[in-house]
Order: sequence, then C-alpha cells, then structure tokens
Amino acid sequence: MIHPLSENHAEPKAGSAFVREGERVDPLQRGDLRILQRPGAFCFGTDAVLLADFAAPRGGEKVADLGTGTGILPLLMSASAPTARFDGVEIQPDMADMAARSVKMNGLEGRIRIHCLDMREAAETLGREAYDLVVCNPPYSRPDRALTSPREEKALARQLCGLSLEEVAASGAALLKNGGRMALVYPAAWLFDLMCALRGARLEPKRLRIVQASPGAAPKLVLLDAVKNGGSQLHWQKPLVLRGEDGRETEEYRRIYHLEQ
Amino acid sequence: MIHPLSENHAEPKAGSAFVREGERVDPLQRGDLRILQRPGAFCFGTDAVLLADFAAPRGGEKVADLGTGTGILPLLMSASAPTARFDGVEIQPDMADMAARSVKMNGLEGRIRIHCLDMREAAETLGREAYDLVVCNPPYSRPDRALTSPREEKALARQLCGLSLEEVAASGAALLKNGGRMALVYPAAWLFDLMCALRGARLEPKRLRIVQASPGAAPKLVLLDAVKNGGSQLHWQKPLVLRGEDGRETEEYRRIYHLEQ
Repeated sequence: MIHPLSENHAEPKAGSAFVREGERVDPLQRGDLRILQRPGAFCFGTDAVLLADFAAPRGGEKVADLGTGTGILPLLMSASAPTARFDGVEIQPDMADMAARSVKMNGLEGRIRIHCLDMREAAETLGREAYDLVVCNPPYSRPDRALTSPREEKALARQLCGLSLEEVAASGAALLKNGGRMALVYPAAWLFDLMCALRGARLEPKRLRIVQASPGAAPKLVLLDAVKNGGSQLHWQKPLVLRGEDGRETEEYRRIYHLEQ
Repeated sequence: MIHPLSENHAEPKAGSAFVREGERVDPLQRGDLRILQRPGAFCFGTDAVLLADFAAPRGGEKVADLGTGTGILPLLMSASAPTARFDGVEIQPDMADMAARSVKMNGLEGRIRIHCLDMREAAETLGREAYDLVVCNPPYSRPDRALTSPREEKALARQLCGLSLEEVAASGAALLKNGGRMALVYPAAWLFDLMCALRGARLEPKRLRIVQASPGAAPKLVLLDAVKNGGSQLHWQKPLVLRGEDGRETEEYRRIYHLEQ
C-alpha cells in the first residue's frame, strides 16, 4: 500500500494547516526547514542527525530511507544534497502521514516522497537495484531483547518492527544498484551482528566511524556504510566526539547540528 | 616436534652465555627482565606490548601464545601475572631457540615453556581445551596480500606463516576451555574478517579496544578478545591513545611500557 500524500496545499509559512492535535513544529537549523513531531510518541534523536551527516548523499543521487519515521533523514539530507531525490519508507500509517505533511509543509514534495510500506516490499514497489544510497536508522533493541515501552508506536520503532537485521539488510540490498551503499547508525555493542547481516546480503562493510560522547569515552554508537558487492577492507574514519572535556559541544557536533560557532 | 629447551645453565646475570652472533640483549623495563632479539630479522613491536597489557592473564591461569616469536608476550605477561603459566608456540626453529634462551636467561623456565610447533598441532601436543587464555599477535598482511620483505624470517612472520585467519582461530579454539578467551591485536582494517574467523571457530568477539596514534586519529590497530561459546554483545573499552596532541606519550602508554612517569 502506498500512502497518498496529503492534498493540503496551504502555505508552508503558516504551518498550522499541516499540524494535527498532539503534534508540534520544530525548526531544523537549516534555513526555513521544519519538521512535525509528536512528543511522547516519536521524535528524532541525535543518531538521525549524525547519520544524515555520515551518509552524505551526493548530487543527483537517488536515496531511500528505510523506516523514515518523522522523515527526519530525507529532510536533513535534502538540505545538504540539493539535487538528490529521496524516498522515505515507513510502515506506520500515522507516522507516514505526519512525515508526508512535514515534506509538504517544507514544499519538498518534488524531491521527497513518503511511502507507507513494509520495507521488505520496498524494492518491489519502488524499484529493484534503482538506488545509489539506502539509509536506515534501525531501532536500538535487538528483536530478541524486547524493550517494554509505554507507547506502542515508540515500542514498534525500537523493536525493528518485528524485522531481523538480516531482513533490514536484504531490504536495502534489493533497492541498491551494484556499487551502491547502505549507511546505518547502530549501537556499538551490536556492530558485529550488523556487519554480519550486511555481508550476508552482499553489502560489504566499508566505512566505519565510532561516536564518542566525550574524548576518551568508550563508543556507544557506530556509523557504518556497506557497499553492494564491495571488497572487505574497513576504512575507519576518525572518531566523532560529541562533547569536549569541558562538556561543551565540539566544533564538529556544532557543524553537524548547524549550530552557530 | 617439541623444540628442546637449551641445556645452558649459566648465570642469567651474565647473559652472554645465552647470546648468539647477531643477537642482542634488550631490557624490558620490568625489573631485571630482558629479551634476546636479532636486529634485522625480528624484534618485537608496539603491538606485542599493547596485547600483553590487554590480554591481562589472571593469577593461576594457563596461557598459550600462538606464534610467540621472540617470546615477548609470555615474558611480559609473566611479570604482570606472577602465578600464571605460559606455553609459547613458534614454528621457526631459530626463533623458538632464541625465545627459549630468553626464558632461561631470565630464569623463567619453570613458568614459560617454548615449543617449536606448527600452531595447528598445538592442541594435539599441548592439550585440547586445557587453556584459560590464548594470545596471538598474527602477522599483519593478509595471506592474499603478501608483503615483499628483505628477510625470509620477517616475511614469514608477516604472512601468517601460510595460515589463514580461520586456521589461527581454530588453533586457539582447540586449546581453550569452554568460556576461555583468545586475545589478539590486528589491523583495524581487517577487524571484521578477524571477528568472522573467530566466530567461525565458536570464539565470540567480546572485548574490543581501538588503538589511536593520537587523540582524534582514525584507529590503525585493534585489540580484541573472544570468548569460547560466549554471547554476541561487544564490550567496547575506551580507546587506547598512544600520544597526546603534543606528540608526547600518554600516561597510559607510559604505564603499559613501564616508563617512568
């Protein structure tokens, strides 16, 4: 099922026409770019912002986001790659509707399409081997370690929506052209499982960046991309450190968040 | 074939009785501990010193070192774990002989035994599932990426002696008790291949520490241990940084090398 984009054409400036009860409009520090979020149900986190920066789509690339949620990844990436086109895939109808309204609110419906779809059906619907880049911010608990979450939406988003890492990898691989890449953010503790799932789908782990909360801290998150049918050498980037010894955001954190220097 | 330990019982203090032409005696910054090395053929490097610290055998443990070379790992570990016992396995007779003489020179033949053996035969000879800890500093080039090395010994040491990572992992697994661990140092670029080889031998990657030449640098080396029949969660330690922004050794580097603070 493809979720139809909202037919509401109100002026993006006003914003209110796009907003439903329980939602709020948040600025994204990239010009006038804004996003709808639903506090208590689902808001984007640091990991999405870091992944948008790490994935870094190039001009003209065709990009898919698996489990797009609020649409945060295509929205952010649309600002840094003005000629790239994006398809966001989201299985939850409410969430997909909110993401589609965010896209319209920003006047980006020509570049970002939101589809209410199971990611396992994404390639069949959107096109096999048609994408240069697939991004995914998979939920953080592993399927065999269910979190108890007060809100069903949040719980769903944090439990891979019943998918295995292998299904996530296979969904990305089916969408990617040969040589295309899949970029993900994931807990450092499960890096090896993630890499195995990717290799199992012929996505060879390639570029790896650990995220440290402070200098010298053990990494809790990793940013990883994998190349379809690539070779097996890992390219480690310098670690991404979020805060300095003094607890203040690092220069790179501020660059990624587009905060004033 | 077990290489017989030297029958030379000269006083360790003198040292010269243990030294062959082309060799020299180097201090190890741990009391009177010294090692024989052969400049131009094979000397230990930073990676061995880091691995000895990372592996950290506990009191009373039985430890094997696969590809012991000069015997540097058991020598260093014998100083930090005074009640542990060590078996060093080395395939090259000249090297095994030199390592055995280093052991005698230090009066450690009661705790460290050097065996001239192919590591693939180590379990059969030394005992299956008899060890708490196996350490290994595998050579740095992958078998399919042979380095051209001026000296055959050095070349051998840098090419896994014709072994695959899978054979190294299997050799370690055969020696280890259930729940025992194998600790290795390896180039960061091949971490994933190393982890796959270990998992293939039922050694589950467990504790991971990246080594950075300086703060913020991309890691070139990793220290990893894997637990026989362990679970799949990775425990990342804080990165090991060798030198500060000012180019001087960090406090931890000095601790590991036993340099004066």
